[in-house]
Parts: sequence; structure tokens; C-alpha cells
Amino acid sequence: MHSFPQHLLDGHANFMSGRYSREKERIRDLAEAGQTPSTLIIACCDSRAAPEMIFDAGPGELFVLRNVANLVPTYQPDGGQHGTSAAIEFAIKGLGISNIVVMGHGRCGGIQAALDPNSKPLDSGDFIGKWMSMLGGLPAQLGQNDLMTPAERQTALERISIRNSIRNLRTFPYVAALETDGKLAVHGAWFDISNGELWVMDVHGDFIRPAL
Amino acid sequence: MHSFPQHLLDGHANFMSGRYSREKERIRDLAEAGQTPSTLIIACCDSRAAPEMIFDAGPGELFVLRNVANLVPTYQPDGGQHGTSAAIEFAIKGLGISNIVVMGHGRCGGIQAALDPNSKPLDSGDFIGKWMSMLGGLPAQLGQNDLMTPAERQTALERISIRNSIRNLRTFPYVAALETDGKLAVHGAWFDISNGELWVMDVHGDFIRPAL
Amino acid sequence: MHSFPQHLLDGHANFMSGRYSREKERIRDLAEAGQTPSTLIIACCDSRAAPEMIFDAGPGELFVLRNVANLVPTYQPDGGQHGTSAAIEFAIKGLGISNIVVMGHGRCGGIQAALDPNSKPLDSGDFIGKWMSMLGGLPAQLGQNDLMTPAERQTALERISIRNSIRNLRTFPYVAALETDGKLAVHGAWFDISNGELWVMDVHGDFIRPAL
Amino acid sequence: MHSFPQHLLDGHANFMSGRYSREKERIRDLAEAGQTPSTLIIACCDSRAAPEMIFDAGPGELFVLRNVANLVPTYQPDGGQHGTSAAIEFAIKGLGISNIVVMGHGRCGGIQAALDPNSKPLDSGDFIGKWMSMLGGLPAQLGQNDLMTPAERQTALERISIRNSIRNLRTFPYVAALETDGKLAVHGAWFDISNGELWVMDVHGDFIRPAL
Repeated sequence: MHSFPQHLLDGHANFMSGRYSREKERIRDLAEAGQTPSTLIIACCDSRAAPEMIFDAGPGELFVLRNVANLVPTYQPDGGQHGTSAAIEFAIKGLGISNIVVMGHGRCGGIQAALDPNSKPLDSGDFIGKWMSMLGGLPAQLGQNDLMTPAERQTALERISIRNSIRNLRTFPYVAALETDGKLAVHGAWFDISNGELWVMDVHGDFIRPAL
Repeated sequence: MHSFPQHLLDGHANFMSGRYSREKERIRDLAEAGQTPSTLIIACCDSRAAPEMIFDAGPGELFVLRNVANLVPTYQPDGGQHGTSAAIEFAIKGLGISNIVVMGHGRCGGIQAALDPNSKPLDSGDFIGKWMSMLGGLPAQLGQNDLMTPAERQTALERISIRNSIRNLRTFPYVAALETDGKLAVHGAWFDISNGELWVMDVHGDFIRPAL
Repeated sequence: MHSFPQHLLDGHANFMSGRYSREKERIRDLAEAGQTPSTLIIACCDSRAAPEMIFDAGPGELFVLRNVANLVPTYQPDGGQHGTSAAIEFAIKGLGISNIVVMGHGRCGGIQAALDPNSKPLDSGDFIGKWMSMLGGLPAQLGQNDLMTPAERQTALERISIRNSIRNLRTFPYVAALETDGKLAVHGAWFDISNGELWVMDVHGDFIRPAL
Repeated sequence: MHSFPQHLLDGHANFMSGRYSREKERIRDLAEAGQTPSTLIIACCDSRAAPEMIFDAGPGELFVLRNVANLVPTYQPDGGQHGTSAAIEFAIKGLGISNIVVMGHGRCGGIQAALDPNSKPLDSGDFIGKWMSMLGGLPAQLGQNDLMTPAERQTALERISIRNSIRNLRTFPYVAALETDGKLAVHGAWFDISNGELWVMDVHGDFIRPAL
């Protein structure tokens, strides 16, 4: 056990003298009263795509699940230890959130791995390969159009994958039921890690930059 | 599909005019060159415990996995879609990170559920129950001392669970090997969501507030 | 009979030229008028946990009972020579104190002995073993969780023991009656002998650091 | 449960900014390395006779047992919960202290109660009466000399009682054995709570003011 990374300790000291110091009352109230976030964000682990940064969100605002490539599996009540499904269940059944946002982002390493037919497993356990296999035949269905650039293919799959996760989300009976009742809204978003733009899914399923 | 939540759009506008505007160069370089975070944080989905807030971290610094109660399973290369293991594999094998921090926090809803012998599943799928069953007999081993308060039992299990996740982390062959070679360090941390304090594991496995 | 320890004589000379010299009037008045402390502190014999040091208290302020591990037995008017009960009776019935503080502390040797199932009696008289048996099954009720560190178990039992002493205090009929009448308040405290912090029991029985 | 007494919180704040701040290193070392006091002081609970004040002693110096009237019972390994004997056993067998000081003081309330043949029990439990009965016939043996003032009788019994406690101490087999071997010294002291003087027992058992 090495000593705790100094850059994290320094960062925490900044937090204490900065945000904590300024918002102490609110933070303590949140601890005492319990969290009541209205939104579940399903995002990627990527260090460049933190939801709290992108949405300038403070403590108590966002319930955040982060896995590689922000994937959502289908509803599988088979007794397995499904971490993503547990977070979705907790957010909806335990916290009563009213919005779910599946947020992908550009240059996603997991999507890139899924796109590369020659990619080798990172390790013999091949957890990434198994995890990304949740996309099934979607990468292959992008076809072999040789006038589509690699970047375009990547962005395309990032967005297809968001729609796939949303489709899977709706296999959860309570997601479907609450959405039908107008008590829960499911959204898609895609963040451009280079120019900072947020693209959101419109009623057609297209990604657009929202009007300001 | 409802329209995208306005508070998220407003937050993103703040991001663009604030941090993005100030750090544009760095953010674009990060997009271009790829991420090279040195640290994987395994944290909870709780809206009051965002790693980027706690460590005042900017884009590119932290690769962040968030699931309910920041649990890590044992190494199980069984072909299942293990999201947490995929993130760990990607962080180590794909990004070459040199620090892993398992960070728990106070008043964790998942831990609370694990402690309550009378808790009912939130849903018939019972994903939370199955997920928290990763703790095995640890909650029961806390005993039935009636002079221990509920808050004390909760803090005790939050910390026990961090140690359990660290023990499980070391069942990943590459974690154990890299740690032995001094190329990877595994840390534990516990965040007090009320007073903002960070407690870190020392060489004895105890949680202490680091000297400033 | 050896000569009186020189370090104590030197210390007393310091007292005479220091505090006594400065507070002579008050000290003499206290001798003449009699003591009227408002608080009984029940503390441990440990050399690192003197109540007068911890509370920066001067002559006349604290009526102080110190035994191993600051234990209070239940009310047992059986004719035995109960030293702790005698001090409590004297403080309440003789001096009319209005506050009782049961103060435990970290790294308590008596608690450590109670926690070790393999500890051998220090002596054939085994006074420590008999004395600590006042805790009954509380140490065993902490369970056998192997991911709880020895230091955590110790702190847990130190705090449980304080609550047990408070529960026992309330078996004294006058303690219960005066407390009900609002004429006596019973408090718990735990002193960290390393960092100097004082933790006090809140309304839930939890130990917290009081806000300054 | 009332809120913790403010005067104690204020006193602790003084401790933290005063002594703790000045002696932090030493105090932390003591916590880490364990206490090694060389002296056990058996003193009274009286608020005007704190050993640490009288001997200007800092953390780690004195292992302090305080009961009403600083009494020591005889060695009674009968299975009872003897608090005073437990502290003596711990000090000698557990800590290896080399000096024991039985310290009485002027105007002691316990001694006063023992002297008054008309005194009524403070309470039906009569813990004080039972406790002071440890002196047996000693108060009565002072006789009825009507030219001895009450103050003289009180001082006389205070000093007689110290010698009685020392006699009882020597019924502890290890006290007697270690004293014979020259590894333990037993001392008597009497503190004048009015003028601050310390009187110590000489080789004849007389109380004298030590030469400076």
C-alpha cells in the first residue's frame, strides 16, 4: 500500500477551501435529508467526459452511473450481479428519478475497440470484448463503405449505441410503464470532447445541437 | 421523448462559457492526443459523491467507474458481461493507469440496503439485492451489538466493503502482478458527504484523515 | 520507603510558582467555601487522558472519578464497597452536580484486554478481567468480521462501552429521576489521544465532533 | 440528552489551541508508542486536588486512579469487580510502574463523613457509607479528646487513612514482592488545598514538607 496520491490530496484541499466552504450549508443539508436527484445520467468512464463537468452540476443534482461506453443491457432478471441494472433499479425504484440521460461522447475507446475487427483482447479475461459484445451485430451492420471515414464510422456507432441502450432501457418493465404514464423521460445525448458541444436526441432520434 | 431537461442545457451553457472557455486549448489537446489519466477511481453513483468534485479534478485527470456502492467483484473470466471488470481491464491494460482508488462514502444507500435484514427488493428483478450480495456474509458478521448505533454499523460496513473490493481487485492477475512490481498502487478512501472530509486507508487498513 | 520522586517534587514547585501563585485567591476561597463543581467526569486512569488537561480545567471545576476504562456498574445496593457508585452518589447527593460526562478515549488498554479472547490474566487475582467483565457479552457481540481492523474494533467497543456505562448510570434511581426532572444531564464523550479531538454523543447516541 | 456543556467545549478549544498545539509531536508519539508512566497516583475525586495540577504533569506522566478519599482496599481475589484493585494490577503488571503515591488532601468530604458519628447516608444505597467503612475502626480510635479541634481530627484521619491504604497496598503480593526487590516504591503524600503545600511521608511515616 503506497501513500495516497498527492495530487488527489491537493485536489481535495482545493475542494474544502473552495466549493465545500462556499456551499457548506447545502451540502450538510443534503447529507442530512438524503439525496433527491431528478436525473440519472448513464455515462462513460472516460476522463474527458465527466457529467458534472459537462452539465456544471453541483452536489445532489445528478445520480451518475459510469461504465465503459455507457452501455445499458436488456432487462435480465436472471439472478446475476448486473451492476448497471442495479443502478437503474435504484435510481427509479429507490430515488424516483424522472429523467434518464444516456450520454455518449466522441472518440470513445470502447466504441473504437468494438469497431476494429482486428482488435485483440486486452487480456485473456477479455472483459472489454465481452462487455462491448452487448452491441451484438451493430458494428458489423455499419457496412464496409470505403468512403466513410473512420471518424464518421466511430461517431455513427457512438450514436447507434446510445439508441441501442435506450431501446434496452425500455425492456425494463418499470421504465416502459413510467414512460407511458409520463412520469419518466428517457433522453439521449452525445458530447463532443473536443469542441465541448452537446448534441441531444430529438423526437426523431436525431442528434441535434439544441437552440440556445 | 420529452424535450431535453432545461437545467442540463443551462448547466452546459455554463460549462461552455466557463471552464470550456478558459481551458479550451487543453481540452482540445486532450481530445486530439487521447486521454492519459494516471488514476482509476471506483466510486458510487450517489449524487453527493462525484469524484471530480471531491478531488477538484479537471478533464483528463480521472478515469471514473461508478456503480452502486463502489463494489468490485472477484476476477471471473467466465464470458459474462462484467461491466466493472471491463472498466478495470481497460484502465490498466488499455490506459496503463498507475493508481486505483476505491472510494466509498457516508450514508450510502446500497450499504444501507445490505445492512437491513428486513429490506424488501425494490423490484421483482431485485438487481440491487443481487448486486449487494457481492458482500456475502460481511453485513451479518457485524454482529448484533445493540449498543452500536445504526450510523456506526453503516460506517463500519462502508469501510469493510472498501477493503473487500480491494481484496477482490487483487484477484485480477494483472493487478496483483503490477502491484508486486511497484507499477500500480491500490488505495482506499472514504468520503464524508456531510463535513466533506476525506479519510484514506493507511498501511494497517485503517481509515485516517491525511495530515495536511 | 524510598525518597519521594524528584520529578513530582519539581512538578509541585512549578505548580507553586506558577498556577498557585497566579490563582492563590481563588484557590484559598475554594478551600474555605468548599467545592461546588457542576460536573462529574467519569474517566480512565490512562496517563494520556487527564480530564483537566483535555478540558483545560482549573481547581474546583471538575469532580473526577477515574477507573480503568471509565466503567460504571449498575446500581447494586448490596452492601458491597462500590467505589465508582460511591463517587456517583457523592457527586449527586452530596455536591448536587448537574452534569455527568462518561469520557472514554482511544487506544484504551482495558478495552483492548476485553477484546482479546486469548488475553491471559495479568495476575492470579485477575482484577482487570473481573472488572472488564462488567461489559458482559458486548465484546463478543462485535462479531468476527475479518475485514474490520483491530483499531476499528477497539474504537467501536470504546464507544459501545460508553453507552453501556450511561445505560448503567440510569439504573441509579436518583440519576433517572433527576434526568427526568431536567436537573441532571448525562453525556458521553470520546477523546482521541493522538489528534486531540473530542467527540461527543449526539441525540442519536452517535459520536460527533461538535461544531465550533 | 442535553447538549454538551459549553464550558467543557470551550475548555477543549483552549486545550487544542494551547497545550495540544505546542506539544503535538510528543502527544502523537505517546499515542503511537503507548503510555509508559513511571508513577501510579491514587488520589481523591475532589475538584480541588487534581494530581496533574498539583504536580504540573503533562500527558503520559501519571497513571491516575481517583476514588472518594483515595482509599485502597486489601487484596481480595474473590471474583468481585474491584475497580481500585484492577487499576493497581494494571499499573503494576501491565505498565510496570515503579512508584505508587497515595495522595490525600485537606478538607476531604469522604473523611469528613467517616468522622461524623451522626452523619446520615446520602441515599438509601449508602454507597459512601459502605465505601468509607473500609477504614473500619480507625475513625473511632481517634478518641474523644475534646481539646482536639475538628480540623485537627480531620487532618489526623486523612493521614491515618493514607497509611492504612499503604498498609492495604502491601497485602497485594506483587506490591510486597517488588518493594522488597527494590523495584517498586510506595509513597504517601498529603496536599493542602488551601496553601498549596505538599506534605510527603518520610521514613518514619511522618508527613513533612520536603526541603527544596
